[in-house]
Amino acid sequence: MHVNKLLLILIFLSLPLAACAPDTSSHSDVVTQAPERPVFELTTDEAYDLGTIGAYPDDHAEIYDYIDANIDAHLRALQRWLRQPSISAQNVGIEQMAEMLRGDLENLGFQEAKLVPTDGHPGVWAYYDAGNEKTLVVYLMYDVQPVDPEDWQSPPFAANLVDHDLGKVLMARGATNQKGPQRAFLNALESIIAVDGSLPVNVMIAAEGEEELGSPHYHQIVDRYFDRLKTADAALFPFNSQRPDGNISVILGVKGILYVEMTATGGSWGGPADAEIHGSYKAIVDSPVWRLIKALSSLTSPDGNTILVSGYYDGIVPPTAEESLLINAAIEQRDDVQLQELLGVSRWIDGKTGNDAAIELLYQPTLNIDGIWSGYTGEGVKTILPHTASAKVDSRLPPGLDPDEALAKIRHHLDSNGFDDISIEKLSAYPASQTSIETPEVRAALGVFKKYASGVAVQPRIAGSAPFYQFTDRLGLPLIPAGMGFGTGAHAPNEIMLIEPGDGVPVAGLAEIEKAYVDFIYALAD
Amino acid sequence: MHVNKLLLILIFLSLPLAACAPDTSSHSDVVTQAPERPVFELTTDEAYDLGTIGAYPDDHAEIYDYIDANIDAHLRALQRWLRQPSISAQNVGIEQMAEMLRGDLENLGFQEAKLVPTDGHPGVWAYYDAGNEKTLVVYLMYDVQPVDPEDWQSPPFAANLVDHDLGKVLMARGATNQKGPQRAFLNALESIIAVDGSLPVNVMIAAEGEEELGSPHYHQIVDRYFDRLKTADAALFPFNSQRPDGNISVILGVKGILYVEMTATGGSWGGPADAEIHGSYKAIVDSPVWRLIKALSSLTSPDGNTILVSGYYDGIVPPTAEESLLINAAIEQRDDVQLQELLGVSRWIDGKTGNDAAIELLYQPTLNIDGIWSGYTGEGVKTILPHTASAKVDSRLPPGLDPDEALAKIRHHLDSNGFDDISIEKLSAYPASQTSIETPEVRAALGVFKKYASGVAVQPRIAGSAPFYQFTDRLGLPLIPAGMGFGTGAHAPNEIMLIEPGDGVPVAGLAEIEKAYVDFIYALAD
Repeated sequence: MHVNKLLLILIFLSLPLAACAPDTSSHSDVVTQAPERPVFELTTDEAYDLGTIGAYPDDHAEIYDYIDANIDAHLRALQRWLRQPSISAQNVGIEQMAEMLRGDLENLGFQEAKLVPTDGHPGVWAYYDAGNEKTLVVYLMYDVQPVDPEDWQSPPFAANLVDHDLGKVLMARGATNQKGPQRAFLNALESIIAVDGSLPVNVMIAAEGEEELGSPHYHQIVDRYFDRLKTADAALFPFNSQRPDGNISVILGVKGILYVEMTATGGSWGGPADAEIHGSYKAIVDSPVWRLIKALSSLTSPDGNTILVSGYYDGIVPPTAEESLLINAAIEQRDDVQLQELLGVSRWIDGKTGNDAAIELLYQPTLNIDGIWSGYTGEGVKTILPHTASAKVDSRLPPGLDPDEALAKIRHHLDSNGFDDISIEKLSAYPASQTSIETPEVRAALGVFKKYASGVAVQPRIAGSAPFYQFTDRLGLPLIPAGMGFGTGAHAPNEIMLIEPGDGVPVAGLAEIEKAYVDFIYALAD
Repeated sequence: MHVNKLLLILIFLSLPLAACAPDTSSHSDVVTQAPERPVFELTTDEAYDLGTIGAYPDDHAEIYDYIDANIDAHLRALQRWLRQPSISAQNVGIEQMAEMLRGDLENLGFQEAKLVPTDGHPGVWAYYDAGNEKTLVVYLMYDVQPVDPEDWQSPPFAANLVDHDLGKVLMARGATNQKGPQRAFLNALESIIAVDGSLPVNVMIAAEGEEELGSPHYHQIVDRYFDRLKTADAALFPFNSQRPDGNISVILGVKGILYVEMTATGGSWGGPADAEIHGSYKAIVDSPVWRLIKALSSLTSPDGNTILVSGYYDGIVPPTAEESLLINAAIEQRDDVQLQELLGVSRWIDGKTGNDAAIELLYQPTLNIDGIWSGYTGEGVKTILPHTASAKVDSRLPPGLDPDEALAKIRHHLDSNGFDDISIEKLSAYPASQTSIETPEVRAALGVFKKYASGVAVQPRIAGSAPFYQFTDRLGLPLIPAGMGFGTGAHAPNEIMLIEPGDGVPVAGLAEIEKAYVDFIYALAD
């Protein structure tokens, strides 16, 4: 999931009292329009009263006992998933993982469980008809990010139980993002069925294998089952929502994303068109690498932090009244220093802290370079003038900034700055998504969180992205990322999910995570 | 050799009559000093009269016959060398190739033939004491550039004879740069010794295995034999000097080079210090990739072609009277369009042609990006904010621009533009080299060229680099890149050397190349 470490982001949520200082550090090098980022402010200094939501009162002791009795087998189910690589970007293990998911759903008792062909990796559709009135859609992703195995303390697909400060953790690519919590959720379903004979709600599974690619074909899966999905009452995304201190962050919105590959190649403008040439020709031959660098550089202020694309900030929706209330309510969980230490970052942009940084994180669009490459990148010396240079660039899009509009604006910027030869390939694009805290299903889920954790905060949004707009905007459903538990390291080496907390660590282990999922399902059924 | 395709560069040599138009297209984005490149002009419109040099008159028929009789074995000697990989940047086959060269010299009758340890790859020293008054130093390099085998029409270390427009060619990494002409030269030595029993001059071999790395330790080899090398009369570099049309280009100078790796990493200035983080944090975290891009961008004008480093152009020596005469003499061999087609380039910088382009090529320093890399560069989408970004950057240095001064100026530029966190690692650095046409050894070599080719041009300099300053500046010797024959594709896929010219192709084949080397040796002995 793109919302890696999102549980940590809540610690930025800030008081509305202080307005952000305007950013005056940036100035244009090629373009001339005003390069300042907009300043976003909250509409109120009042906080949302989460006290109006009571803790979920029910107890499903027989099912909890079943979970405790079967926890070793449940852990092995997580390990089985994690030992099956499923790297969507490299098409490694995708078919096997799709079938593993489909087969598991069939074995659980789903009457329908089938692969869904798309123009990319297949999806998985499954339906459990419990004969109930209410229907939950569960969004799953079975793919993971690529790995650099040499950076891992334990091999990324060994799924070893490893000792950690917090207790015993599963270390594997996908441990927390997203196989671990997803398989824990299925363990919960299995436990309910084992004890009660059925589920308290009908369950639709709409899974994809391309989330880490930006969900380029998820719409095809939704299209295929659109009429049936429309009949559901809510969408749920199994997710490790706890922090190491036990506090919970519930997320009601995500940014959208535009992910492109930009390339400069020699051509009529100059530069070698077909292949690298000897570097000494630079004296008379233009360089596609310099060209890409200049084109990229024209997109941002000298510090790389303000987007100079004309109109890029225009449509962004500032904090609403509900969002402002929620941000204020989450303030006590904010801790800049803790997050900076976790990320290995000495300072936020412009040295901002507290409220300023929190609002920047949630409301600013980004222009980030995920990768750049050209020419010789090996050891030592090779003297060439490369004929092509490329960069992967992503932009996180708050509500109000449509991905296709964003792309058109970037294209226009390049064209009007003389970079019309720079190609842009769109690799992923979808808009932001937002769910209101006032929906009954969100309030029911919050009740379960309150049963298990003392500190529960609700964030209107995180800085990451997920294709939740398929549920909120296309299907009109509330989307709830639900789940106890802690994990970290998504998209990075040494990804983990906490399985057995150490003494005094106030975080749910695997058994408690599964018990909470049982409660979520019953709470949402009511 | 860094002087890949240098034989083609002479076609740029230009009339001195028209002064270069000043470049008015560049302007600064970060720094504010004048960004215009200097305009260099020739001192005269007269041309050097090569007619004062007569063709070498002697004929060594018995040796020529020996070459013809043994040409199959001679070709196999080239193939043997070319089938031994010796990629200095990757330390592939280096030891084996050094020993192959050493052993061949021993077998030829060199009384001394030994490996020379350095702090890098070993050199090879050999001495053939012919009991003569005159002594030639022969500079050899036994290393080659890296390869991307999938780009090759024939495997790069198969050394197959391949049909080509010009005739039968040897295709291999190192075919023309530099193993092909070097082994042909040794075939010539072998033939002289076989027929005459000895050589007409004493021969010192001072070979290195790190030329493609920028000769970082060649000075150690020269140091070790400095006093003996000082006693030599001239230095010779075996080299394929012909063009496909049969014309010859003799090169009397090379640019120097500074080759560095520049890196931006997160730290106290901002950005993640230890590892990549999730890309969504870009909203509050600085990016080392953007930082490298901005630092690089500050070094050049918006078109990437004028160096904005303060004082970079200050010390460059403009064309001397001798150089001006030579440039004027070479004009008839200049052909912009032919070279552009060969390189796959539509236009030279600023659309320059003719005289302007020729003088730019020989007298401008460059700032070229050989490679750049950061973050995710694989297939598809990975959303990260990388913690480090690097670029390989080289600068070609005309006489008057010292590599250490150039490096200091770049460092000062970055520091004074706020980029003191950008690290610069020096990978290679040596100054330019120049030999005068008025030395008797150069005139003797030119006489041999005149015997074999109707069109002989002399270039004062090429745009490429070679560590010839070791001979010209440290040892006070004229350095002569001598040799008939044609090759192309150095530092690129499908490198070739012409072995058997097709009908009507006026270029020397292997046998004639070797015969000419015989003549060079005798001519230089006189």
